[in-house]
Amino acid sequence: MNRNIQTFIGCDAEYSNADIVLFGAPYDCTASFRPGARFACNAVRSESFGIETYSPYQDCDLSEIRVFDAGDLELGFGDPVPVLERIEEFTLRVLKDEKLPVMVGGEHLVTLGAVRAAAKVYDQLHIIDFDAHADTRDEYLGAKLSHATVIRRAWELVGDGRIYQFGIRSGDKSEFLWAKKHVYTTKFDFSGLEDAVNKLSGKPVYLTIDLDILDPSVFPGTGTPEAGGVGFTELLDAIRQVSRLNIVGCDVNELCPVYDSSGASTAVACKVMRELLLSLGKR
Amino acid sequence: MNRNIQTFIGCDAEYSNADIVLFGAPYDCTASFRPGARFACNAVRSESFGIETYSPYQDCDLSEIRVFDAGDLELGFGDPVPVLERIEEFTLRVLKDEKLPVMVGGEHLVTLGAVRAAAKVYDQLHIIDFDAHADTRDEYLGAKLSHATVIRRAWELVGDGRIYQFGIRSGDKSEFLWAKKHVYTTKFDFSGLEDAVNKLSGKPVYLTIDLDILDPSVFPGTGTPEAGGVGFTELLDAIRQVSRLNIVGCDVNELCPVYDSSGASTAVACKVMRELLLSLGKR
Amino acid sequence: MNRNIQTFIGCDAEYSNADIVLFGAPYDCTASFRPGARFACNAVRSESFGIETYSPYQDCDLSEIRVFDAGDLELGFGDPVPVLERIEEFTLRVLKDEKLPVMVGGEHLVTLGAVRAAAKVYDQLHIIDFDAHADTRDEYLGAKLSHATVIRRAWELVGDGRIYQFGIRSGDKSEFLWAKKHVYTTKFDFSGLEDAVNKLSGKPVYLTIDLDILDPSVFPGTGTPEAGGVGFTELLDAIRQVSRLNIVGCDVNELCPVYDSSGASTAVACKVMRELLLSLGKR
Amino acid sequence: MNRNIQTFIGCDAEYSNADIVLFGAPYDCTASFRPGARFACNAVRSESFGIETYSPYQDCDLSEIRVFDAGDLELGFGDPVPVLERIEEFTLRVLKDEKLPVMVGGEHLVTLGAVRAAAKVYDQLHIIDFDAHADTRDEYLGAKLSHATVIRRAWELVGDGRIYQFGIRSGDKSEFLWAKKHVYTTKFDFSGLEDAVNKLSGKPVYLTIDLDILDPSVFPGTGTPEAGGVGFTELLDAIRQVSRLNIVGCDVNELCPVYDSSGASTAVACKVMRELLLSLGKR
Amino acid sequence: MNRNIQTFIGCDAEYSNADIVLFGAPYDCTASFRPGARFACNAVRSESFGIETYSPYQDCDLSEIRVFDAGDLELGFGDPVPVLERIEEFTLRVLKDEKLPVMVGGEHLVTLGAVRAAAKVYDQLHIIDFDAHADTRDEYLGAKLSHATVIRRAWELVGDGRIYQFGIRSGDKSEFLWAKKHVYTTKFDFSGLEDAVNKLSGKPVYLTIDLDILDPSVFPGTGTPEAGGVGFTELLDAIRQVSRLNIVGCDVNELCPVYDSSGASTAVACKVMRELLLSLGKR
Amino acid sequence: MNRNIQTFIGCDAEYSNADIVLFGAPYDCTASFRPGARFACNAVRSESFGIETYSPYQDCDLSEIRVFDAGDLELGFGDPVPVLERIEEFTLRVLKDEKLPVMVGGEHLVTLGAVRAAAKVYDQLHIIDFDAHADTRDEYLGAKLSHATVIRRAWELVGDGRIYQFGIRSGDKSEFLWAKKHVYTTKFDFSGLEDAVNKLSGKPVYLTIDLDILDPSVFPGTGTPEAGGVGFTELLDAIRQVSRLNIVGCDVNELCPVYDSSGASTAVACKVMRELLLSLGKR
Repeated sequence: MNRNIQTFIGCDAEYSNADIVLFGAPYDCTASFRPGARFACNAVRSESFGIETYSPYQDCDLSEIRVFDAGDLELGFGDPVPVLERIEEFTLRVLKDEKLPVMVGGEHLVTLGAVRAAAKVYDQLHIIDFDAHADTRDEYLGAKLSHATVIRRAWELVGDGRIYQFGIRSGDKSEFLWAKKHVYTTKFDFSGLEDAVNKLSGKPVYLTIDLDILDPSVFPGTGTPEAGGVGFTELLDAIRQVSRLNIVGCDVNELCPVYDSSGASTAVACKVMRELLLSLGKR
Repeated sequence: MNRNIQTFIGCDAEYSNADIVLFGAPYDCTASFRPGARFACNAVRSESFGIETYSPYQDCDLSEIRVFDAGDLELGFGDPVPVLERIEEFTLRVLKDEKLPVMVGGEHLVTLGAVRAAAKVYDQLHIIDFDAHADTRDEYLGAKLSHATVIRRAWELVGDGRIYQFGIRSGDKSEFLWAKKHVYTTKFDFSGLEDAVNKLSGKPVYLTIDLDILDPSVFPGTGTPEAGGVGFTELLDAIRQVSRLNIVGCDVNELCPVYDSSGASTAVACKVMRELLLSLGKR
Repeated sequence: MNRNIQTFIGCDAEYSNADIVLFGAPYDCTASFRPGARFACNAVRSESFGIETYSPYQDCDLSEIRVFDAGDLELGFGDPVPVLERIEEFTLRVLKDEKLPVMVGGEHLVTLGAVRAAAKVYDQLHIIDFDAHADTRDEYLGAKLSHATVIRRAWELVGDGRIYQFGIRSGDKSEFLWAKKHVYTTKFDFSGLEDAVNKLSGKPVYLTIDLDILDPSVFPGTGTPEAGGVGFTELLDAIRQVSRLNIVGCDVNELCPVYDSSGASTAVACKVMRELLLSLGKR
Repeated sequence: MNRNIQTFIGCDAEYSNADIVLFGAPYDCTASFRPGARFACNAVRSESFGIETYSPYQDCDLSEIRVFDAGDLELGFGDPVPVLERIEEFTLRVLKDEKLPVMVGGEHLVTLGAVRAAAKVYDQLHIIDFDAHADTRDEYLGAKLSHATVIRRAWELVGDGRIYQFGIRSGDKSEFLWAKKHVYTTKFDFSGLEDAVNKLSGKPVYLTIDLDILDPSVFPGTGTPEAGGVGFTELLDAIRQVSRLNIVGCDVNELCPVYDSSGASTAVACKVMRELLLSLGKR
Repeated sequence: MNRNIQTFIGCDAEYSNADIVLFGAPYDCTASFRPGARFACNAVRSESFGIETYSPYQDCDLSEIRVFDAGDLELGFGDPVPVLERIEEFTLRVLKDEKLPVMVGGEHLVTLGAVRAAAKVYDQLHIIDFDAHADTRDEYLGAKLSHATVIRRAWELVGDGRIYQFGIRSGDKSEFLWAKKHVYTTKFDFSGLEDAVNKLSGKPVYLTIDLDILDPSVFPGTGTPEAGGVGFTELLDAIRQVSRLNIVGCDVNELCPVYDSSGASTAVACKVMRELLLSLGKR
Repeated sequence: MNRNIQTFIGCDAEYSNADIVLFGAPYDCTASFRPGARFACNAVRSESFGIETYSPYQDCDLSEIRVFDAGDLELGFGDPVPVLERIEEFTLRVLKDEKLPVMVGGEHLVTLGAVRAAAKVYDQLHIIDFDAHADTRDEYLGAKLSHATVIRRAWELVGDGRIYQFGIRSGDKSEFLWAKKHVYTTKFDFSGLEDAVNKLSGKPVYLTIDLDILDPSVFPGTGTPEAGGVGFTELLDAIRQVSRLNIVGCDVNELCPVYDSSGASTAVACKVMRELLLSLGKR
């Protein structure tokens, strides 16, 4: 008799023969508005049993791909420094074992840990960021490490012209000015995604999906809901487009279950996860 | 002085001179994910007083049609067998009195009771199913009677080519394969509805509306929210199209008020009810 | 050391040099369905710190305009007569000081107090009403002063052909008939807004935004959610169009935080407020 | 077939042979803090089916007594004047038919309508008030008619020394001073109830139960929760003691279901109702 | 690397060397009022990480005892017959392996499956039932198998004078009359528990704890809250008293997380679980 | 016209003539279970208008004492080091101005900032801690600064025998062992408080009230609810006893409004604040 195993639906491969390694990064301590994304990892696993393993969008089933669910990293609270180190270390191990890391946040800052690992392995690393918020401040209330600075810190690692943002509809004025010089930022939607995908063909790409890119009508359960976002099928289309690239790591973040009393946001997150895993796994 | 009478707004006809008989079927015991649809019947009556009796969509008022509200059937809990018998029996009585039964669920399985009655009265019965889920499994966790098998059971009654599904975006792989042979299934939306309506002209049709066909942004308050659904006005349009047919029975199901903290889903269900009653009643 | 000052984000001008005066009217006592809009004023201030002061839609920042936040009026409960007097008196003072009053409700009836003031100052006053509900009953359950009669009362002040309604999708039959003779009513959406704006050019206009014009998927947190409404970006576009007019007063009303467990509706209201203030302030 | 009848559990007598007439007064428009008590009447009826008709406390069943449920009065919103008239008129009719009126609020102000009727019929009327709040202000924010003034208005009808309050733990300083001269006020609990019952023996007594006398741990779902209240069994004991008196009318008020997400407060209100009806009905 | 293992806090023994086997029975389909107890098993595991493994009440830590967490049984929905068989089968296996089964419900009916197993192994089986509801109906709405009949069905297995109920404060009249002849029923509290423990010394006892024995102030998150229950420390005391007996199986049931928005009820359930496990494990 | 000032009810003194300075410390980033206490400061101010300024417990009114409400400190997120410095700095300023600092958390760690300031001013500083959790770990998940270590850190400042804890009912085994040597810890309740007060007479005392000392029935809205706590009137009594001492600083912490859907916990916190301010202010 085995001890109680709980995985994301259909993700029951062993580590040794898995292509994808799913893991949770339950940290939300720099959230400046409403914390709670730490609970997303567990919620996504529990509620995934409300969806099917089969996708009618892709005519493919999670049973056809090999995903290992490593559970959640044990991360501290408060100071982000050791948290990011732990994420980096784990992601690096997965990358070195030639598997694809798929991280579930947590707040958006957790991305930095995984990007650090990917940048060590791939020196031409590019980043695609689906997001409502620019997250490109140099510091926020005195802190260099924050969900509001994560893309700026990632830019320091990968350099100018390597980051492509889509869906951005919130930031301060200086962030939008800064972005013009250093990153490719598409406001509001996915305009130009096809061009970006063409340009990035063959290059190693880290994909980060801040679920608040979705309109709050579709996804209210997030720390900082921003009206005016993209729709669910638009996001699925974008994910499928991007998955043609050489994705070397990715994450899905900023689900905040405590603000999701209907459960519909968590269900959206589960479905995004399924479609993402299928897109990546069937390659 | 009369005892306290509570009906759906504007549905105050007597049984004898009613054209439509509204009744509740508060059963949700095979719900495999989140139960609670049993509370929909009462919620729809209470909250209907938040909407008007007049529809600006159809320029028609509930006072212009004759609907009798029979209240809720007294149904047991657990085993669905006696529940479906009770629904069948009541529906049959209404049909024999030459009135149109309009049932408010409860979970989708309640449809089977009403379909059994309609199939006894109309031997050419066809079914139109607006739904997110295929519900065509042969059994689910060992059970033949389940919200997940209801359309399969209905198919056993009416036969191949008699069921038209729209909006389906969830099911396992085998369900979609099975559907290709036995029923007409339109994925995701109402494509082809006009053709179907033309083909079904003159035939007796049972209409079942699982409200989870709506996108969860519009209708989060349901047991199993499935992102990627249709919009509210799309559903209204579809209802009006279908109401040109010889509808002999219908139901609206899967509102789950406990997951509707804003009340917006219940309000949607009330408005769908009003538009459906007006569509059917003014014929 | 100053006592604790709480304003809508970025609205920190002094009264003397402000162009716009923001104030709250926390009254909801004629709400016939679900009260609670009284809490909107405070919620909008508190939660405004979840959005940025900068708008990527208008490339403009609240720091570039001058808004004074006067806090909430102290209004009684129950009888609306003294409440409307208090609102009128305050609005009149602001108008006489040649500042633009921007009121946050509260229920829609509060508009009447502000319109009374505006009508005293501007004898050619016109009104633009963004709303789901006609609100043109002559009385409601015996009351002349009600959220359901507010536009009728306003019409008594400004006369035929001076009121333009958009987005109306609920009312009783007689309201729609009455409207045809006395006001310009556009059902469901903003069709014809451009024409209206052209016709109203140069005239003094009071703008009232009942947030329930938005679809409940976008804005569930309101007293009487009405499915089938406009989208968020449609509303922003409409606000920007209208702000080219000579707006002499305006309000935003019917947020009901108690039905907004996700906070997304309050966030929408904050963003509508920001865009409205920027539209009006940068003229 | 009868139209849908919904009564409080077990209250299915006809008016003509009933001893007790239950009715709802869904008004809450002078609530100064959190409105919503208007929804209590309907909630209490719906949720009463979660309790039994039999009381193990009194070894008695609702089937053994005769209660007619008249449903809810249709009351307006806003101005309390016509509301209180409507309540008075209805209560008077019940009293003249020699039945015992039992009203479910609504806010505490509704008591005044019923007390006015009782005072017309019984010129020696006394009042027992179970409550957390003194409610003895002469006016509140300029209003004479308010939940915060209801006992003062009742005192104007019945005079000095005729009102007994228990459980009072909130009020302004002047209310407590005023009370010392005009009414019997017991702070915090039911101390002295037995003496009061002895003194009131044989006299006509109106009993008003503001459920916020209960500690918020037991009854959080109320407009103005006040920590430090009485327990559930203490309240049951007090009701049974008081029911030995010549109760000529009574009410239960201030349940606010919107703040009762667990449903436990509504369940408490139902149980208090059952015990009250049994206490009064078996005399 | 191991797949994601989730257990109740501190319950990380292997099956082979465990003394206690914890498992979930996520079934709630005969719930006649508010379903949702199926979610308790998962909630109790997730939220157990909010409490410590150490008990200051018993000065003992979960690390000092050996508990294996077997996860949840896969149970169907609707018909209870196969569900009870599955529970019985699993419990029997645990008993035959000479380990103590501790089941987390689910609704109270799940107890019957475990009692059937225990009664097969121990022919002198006695039962202690901590509960608010008598649950001794012979049938409920036509059903023999229901949360409302579970103790009656258990009595059919163990016979007269073998069942001891405490805390009972709800039932219909006939249940209380029936109880007098067949079982020992203590109304409202734990009076007489010490005597019962003395009488049962040495006998095999199955302990079932319906958490609604607790007052809803302490434990609102349950399907049918019943005011007037016992306190938390009273329940802990009772558990410790009873654990001196030869407990051969036990369960904790009727937590319904969907009605526990504060999480306090789930936290209570976790703490009851910890204290129960420690009481039983340190023997 | 003044900008919008929002204070805790009745706390409208100017800084210069105030005896007490109230301020908020909205930090919760080391919360290991459920964050959200950052929102308490604002909630307590907003909701304080639901209580009276007058206390019938102490026959005293907030208008009779002088409290200045300084609003909330602007604190960062994540790393606690600069947060504690900011709190210390502010508290020190208040102490040097010979006023009594009363801080509203935030999580319990904020206490450390204030204690550091008090320890600088008073070298014989003692601490009284009302709390459910020992909070005496040396580190927690690698962190020295955490809500779970705050009392340990405070002990490092004040030394052995200077800290008195009451109500402790949660911790790991080593914490209870450590406590025996270094601090006075009373488990579960206020036993021995009178003795402690006598011993501490004349000494400078910092009082910290973690509201989770209250039973979750009274106070569910906290990050880590711990069943088995003290009652509301017990806490009031304890506060009044302690306020006879030379209290040189104090705080109230760990209200978490997001888990307080009924608002009853916030109301309790407001009332505790009022009673605390009155106790301290009328000395």
